[in-house]
Amino acid sequence: MGDMRRVSVGIVGASGYGGVQLIRLLMDHPGVELAYLGGESSAGKPFADLYPHLGHIVRQQIEAVDPEVIASRCEVVFLSLPNGLACQIAPVLIEKGCKVLDLSADYRFTNLETYTTWYGKERNDRTIASKAVYGLPELYRDRIADSQLIGCPGCYPTASLLALSPLLKQGLIVPETAIIDAKSGTSGGGRQAKVNMLLAEADNSLGAYGVARHRHTPEIEQICSDLAGHEVTVQFTPHLIPMVRGILATVYATLRDPGLVGEDLTTIYSAFYRNSPWVTICDRGVYPQTKWACGSNLCYIGIEVDPRTGRAIVMSAIDNLIKGQAGQALQCLNIMMGWDETLGLPKLGFYP
Amino acid sequence: MGDMRRVSVGIVGASGYGGVQLIRLLMDHPGVELAYLGGESSAGKPFADLYPHLGHIVRQQIEAVDPEVIASRCEVVFLSLPNGLACQIAPVLIEKGCKVLDLSADYRFTNLETYTTWYGKERNDRTIASKAVYGLPELYRDRIADSQLIGCPGCYPTASLLALSPLLKQGLIVPETAIIDAKSGTSGGGRQAKVNMLLAEADNSLGAYGVARHRHTPEIEQICSDLAGHEVTVQFTPHLIPMVRGILATVYATLRDPGLVGEDLTTIYSAFYRNSPWVTICDRGVYPQTKWACGSNLCYIGIEVDPRTGRAIVMSAIDNLIKGQAGQALQCLNIMMGWDETLGLPKLGFYP
Amino acid sequence: MGDMRRVSVGIVGASGYGGVQLIRLLMDHPGVELAYLGGESSAGKPFADLYPHLGHIVRQQIEAVDPEVIASRCEVVFLSLPNGLACQIAPVLIEKGCKVLDLSADYRFTNLETYTTWYGKERNDRTIASKAVYGLPELYRDRIADSQLIGCPGCYPTASLLALSPLLKQGLIVPETAIIDAKSGTSGGGRQAKVNMLLAEADNSLGAYGVARHRHTPEIEQICSDLAGHEVTVQFTPHLIPMVRGILATVYATLRDPGLVGEDLTTIYSAFYRNSPWVTICDRGVYPQTKWACGSNLCYIGIEVDPRTGRAIVMSAIDNLIKGQAGQALQCLNIMMGWDETLGLPKLGFYP
Amino acid sequence: MGDMRRVSVGIVGASGYGGVQLIRLLMDHPGVELAYLGGESSAGKPFADLYPHLGHIVRQQIEAVDPEVIASRCEVVFLSLPNGLACQIAPVLIEKGCKVLDLSADYRFTNLETYTTWYGKERNDRTIASKAVYGLPELYRDRIADSQLIGCPGCYPTASLLALSPLLKQGLIVPETAIIDAKSGTSGGGRQAKVNMLLAEADNSLGAYGVARHRHTPEIEQICSDLAGHEVTVQFTPHLIPMVRGILATVYATLRDPGLVGEDLTTIYSAFYRNSPWVTICDRGVYPQTKWACGSNLCYIGIEVDPRTGRAIVMSAIDNLIKGQAGQALQCLNIMMGWDETLGLPKLGFYP
Repeated sequence: MGDMRRVSVGIVGASGYGGVQLIRLLMDHPGVELAYLGGESSAGKPFADLYPHLGHIVRQQIEAVDPEVIASRCEVVFLSLPNGLACQIAPVLIEKGCKVLDLSADYRFTNLETYTTWYGKERNDRTIASKAVYGLPELYRDRIADSQLIGCPGCYPTASLLALSPLLKQGLIVPETAIIDAKSGTSGGGRQAKVNMLLAEADNSLGAYGVARHRHTPEIEQICSDLAGHEVTVQFTPHLIPMVRGILATVYATLRDPGLVGEDLTTIYSAFYRNSPWVTICDRGVYPQTKWACGSNLCYIGIEVDPRTGRAIVMSAIDNLIKGQAGQALQCLNIMMGWDETLGLPKLGFYP
Repeated sequence: MGDMRRVSVGIVGASGYGGVQLIRLLMDHPGVELAYLGGESSAGKPFADLYPHLGHIVRQQIEAVDPEVIASRCEVVFLSLPNGLACQIAPVLIEKGCKVLDLSADYRFTNLETYTTWYGKERNDRTIASKAVYGLPELYRDRIADSQLIGCPGCYPTASLLALSPLLKQGLIVPETAIIDAKSGTSGGGRQAKVNMLLAEADNSLGAYGVARHRHTPEIEQICSDLAGHEVTVQFTPHLIPMVRGILATVYATLRDPGLVGEDLTTIYSAFYRNSPWVTICDRGVYPQTKWACGSNLCYIGIEVDPRTGRAIVMSAIDNLIKGQAGQALQCLNIMMGWDETLGLPKLGFYP
Repeated sequence: MGDMRRVSVGIVGASGYGGVQLIRLLMDHPGVELAYLGGESSAGKPFADLYPHLGHIVRQQIEAVDPEVIASRCEVVFLSLPNGLACQIAPVLIEKGCKVLDLSADYRFTNLETYTTWYGKERNDRTIASKAVYGLPELYRDRIADSQLIGCPGCYPTASLLALSPLLKQGLIVPETAIIDAKSGTSGGGRQAKVNMLLAEADNSLGAYGVARHRHTPEIEQICSDLAGHEVTVQFTPHLIPMVRGILATVYATLRDPGLVGEDLTTIYSAFYRNSPWVTICDRGVYPQTKWACGSNLCYIGIEVDPRTGRAIVMSAIDNLIKGQAGQALQCLNIMMGWDETLGLPKLGFYP
Repeated sequence: MGDMRRVSVGIVGASGYGGVQLIRLLMDHPGVELAYLGGESSAGKPFADLYPHLGHIVRQQIEAVDPEVIASRCEVVFLSLPNGLACQIAPVLIEKGCKVLDLSADYRFTNLETYTTWYGKERNDRTIASKAVYGLPELYRDRIADSQLIGCPGCYPTASLLALSPLLKQGLIVPETAIIDAKSGTSGGGRQAKVNMLLAEADNSLGAYGVARHRHTPEIEQICSDLAGHEVTVQFTPHLIPMVRGILATVYATLRDPGLVGEDLTTIYSAFYRNSPWVTICDRGVYPQTKWACGSNLCYIGIEVDPRTGRAIVMSAIDNLIKGQAGQALQCLNIMMGWDETLGLPKLGFYP
């Protein structure tokens, strides 16, 4: 790897947690070189004004966002912006030949009406959008390899879909019985000052939010429908957990064949993810802890069958900022570049 | 209240979190007087050896557990012991005329075979056990009033049943679709030294445990079956949350009538709990946070209906050590003594 | 207490943590009646808009702040406002005969130049200010009893001064060697949305702030100087701790007499606080945990002497929102009204 | 680096947090190869029994501890054992030619009487012990390079000494005025089940321990004395903080020259650590947060001078398990092997 050519990479929207994680991961990656950091509100400031502890390492300034300039300096661009902004920048970058990985919701939907319904924004970039590939490598590895524009999945959909996909793909469950009860650390809410995210409010507390109307629902349903081969509606409920990082998705679904046991599902999951180095299936009776995943790009999956109710209960644990965001985007880049899918990504969590 | 006669009360098993909460609540209660603190392993020690910060307030010694002696000094006895011990002590106390409130699982089951199946202990105290009443006042207020022996509910069943009962009692849901995804602070695990409960392990982490086989399942099912009028099986999954106190139960169930909306359920719940001062129904669109309940005997219930899936989603939040344990036992005592159900119990949480 | 006359009480600035704690404590206090809740920015809103979980208990609206109106309805007024506002309202209230307890810094200083130096605000209410008494009952009980206007201490000064006072008053230490290393939960920073107070930032982290220039320094020095009988300068450093509530002050000072041992100091502290029901001196070798104090109005003090260095090391633990703020104000009111100093205040913490 | 020869490394005592961090760091290090994992109590078990989330990555078994066998397979051995055990194993390893890095206290003391006084164990391995070098590279880089046996510093001494050394070495302070108020996450207490380390006990709480008698005191004093050129006594007080990782040391000391200002000290510190890539001096007015350091081998140092008191206040933040333990040991190995001091060590923390 020592003399690998380094690809020039830019980040637009570098000030949030997604941005700072991307920077951390890119600096440890042997194939890339950080060529540009951009942002609107913080343009002109040194990056270290936002994260003083990185001042001795990340010396760049945040630059204004001019797609022409970015395209002239970067082969690859990560967009880490609020929803509705990437779709204003990506078309120019794509036209200029950049590979674009968007961390927002803008390029996740094959049906832009769904986007407009749930995100309340009209879209008129249908041509570009139709070229985007959903950046979940465990499901769409081949299409990612051939794509120039990736709509990286949300953190909740990543955990939810990795837990559900083998069941749906193999037709093992009744799709409409799927219930996803998801739990996330508060870093998923970003680095904006909000009263309900204060430590004094959020610590030692727990609650659901966005019940029956969280925007990650249609994203999960789109992929579930793709896997099932017909329209699927799922129940998705997110909860805020008093911790910094990590997502656990607990997924319930009724098995079509009540004779299936836990061993069967473990075998099926292991086979399904045989070529997926970032998914680890837990041994029988072992259930994943989010702490196991935090700091790594891994997704841990634990599986149980309840013979009394005929349900599968599948639990998946990820680091919401790595496999749920920055790490997964980099995993996609590895695939797009023809590199090993694990290149430069952290394999071992912080534990403890 | 000033000249209320104080009833002499004893606690057997005073060293755990249930014991210390009981002591705190009893000391603020105008109708009782703490006459005895007992425990096996800590007998002979001052209570303050276990909780040094209470040394200036609780001067009692932990005494050995002799039911005859306890009965001679106490009109009321709270048993806060590991499962399988209360049923060895309660018969003598009952015979001597004490009112007994047991915080363990020993007197929660009408069918002792269920107890033996899930707890692995044979029982031969059928006569006494048949007199026990399940101590969930919101459902069994009248029977509690007339009883001498109360099997106080577990913390998870309290949160789960308060969320589910109106739906089951009114026949609004398909019972077998009920899924309870419950989340608890670690104090529910007691004050025993275990590696997985260390702050370094449990903080900033999250996971399920006892999936498809937690012992609170048959307890929940027994009451659900009683409410539904036939045998009900539920899915119950507990999770450990990185916080000290609090339980949130998120309950999913398919509505029989897909035309029901959130307002309907809010009306039904408000009516169901009209005479229950310790249950608060949240306004539409408001979902409970465990922090709201912590420090009080309150249960907050939030209600949502998802018209896309036809499910009710009900969330209940309690303090696992108060409404989920010591406070509820004291609420039962208030009822047994003919006192106001709210007497001496905390109405306002610690917040924040 | 049943037929105690209830004094009408108002709170100006009810929306912060100080306000909500005051409400909680006042509702459990047999001698008062909540007659008025006021605030500038939230005037006209129901209190429950700010704290939805209290909607079923606190039904009042936040009213506009008109001192004449307040005085016509309240015998006692608590001011819980940003620094610089109380001194604009208090004069009218005082003139109308109200007892005023100010939780801000406005009435803590005998020398208003000190206030202006550290808080950057000119003052021209010298006459009123000169009547204010510093509301630390353990030191100024008699003067509080006779006063109409109380400048309630800051949270850090409360913990620091209770730890230092016996040493200074008895002349046991070299005053200028006093170093106070204080640690606070984040609720001390109030309920304002700030990035550094987000759970994602503040959890699992720790740092000092305001080093060598925190505004509680001159407040501590004023009282230390009063006790020592001459000007005293102290070193005070606050730290932000990843927890909601609680302050620990670790105080270091060189003993004048190197022969003093821990037992001597324990005896001296016990005598000093003999008539102070809210101060508890720990047994030898026991050091206070903030968790012990949280939820109560207690201050726990632990004492050590290091014979190798000749220093006393004194640790004090309080709940920053109770003994450090709302509870102490109410303790002062008890004294002003001639009630028992412990009336209506919580004696037992939440533990755990 | 691609074709760097990998040195065979063993870890004795792999089951604790020190062990698991070492494994994590060694697996990311291009110069080493993990050849042996040993432990007494867990011998014969797969490592994954202790840390199930590492089962797919660390496939080794824990082996019995036989120094002859270890020496035959490893060029370098890390000892991560309770105090008093390393000195029974190291002599054989040293004799066989291994490089030994001991993470316990056994080889930290030049004067074994000090060890015996504070640790209560007699020692008769004076010859070996006299060859050990204290493994703080920022002070003893050259001696580490030439040594075969390293006594790696404790976590508290690392943070304390990095903060104090420039002041002592340059004679800028009165040594006996030095007070170190240190704060640590609970992972410093190891992975043993203890009641006071339970999340339910330690979370949302804070307290001092080992006041005036913590065993890291003589270790700090030994190095301070070495730097000052005469015997130095310091005040050291550790506190337990409700977080998993991180240490902050707040150090107070009286300056000899009252005319020194913060800028002066910042210049002096920057010069002192000019060749130390793992120490970062914060800009003026910036104070380190432990979160900045966690996950990296960095030590952040913030500096303030209080002109009112004539004291320097220096704050240092480290990850107790990396720079305070496993990372520093690996930094020493880099030096011993003649590699770059930063080789294979994490430069960027987890943040957030």
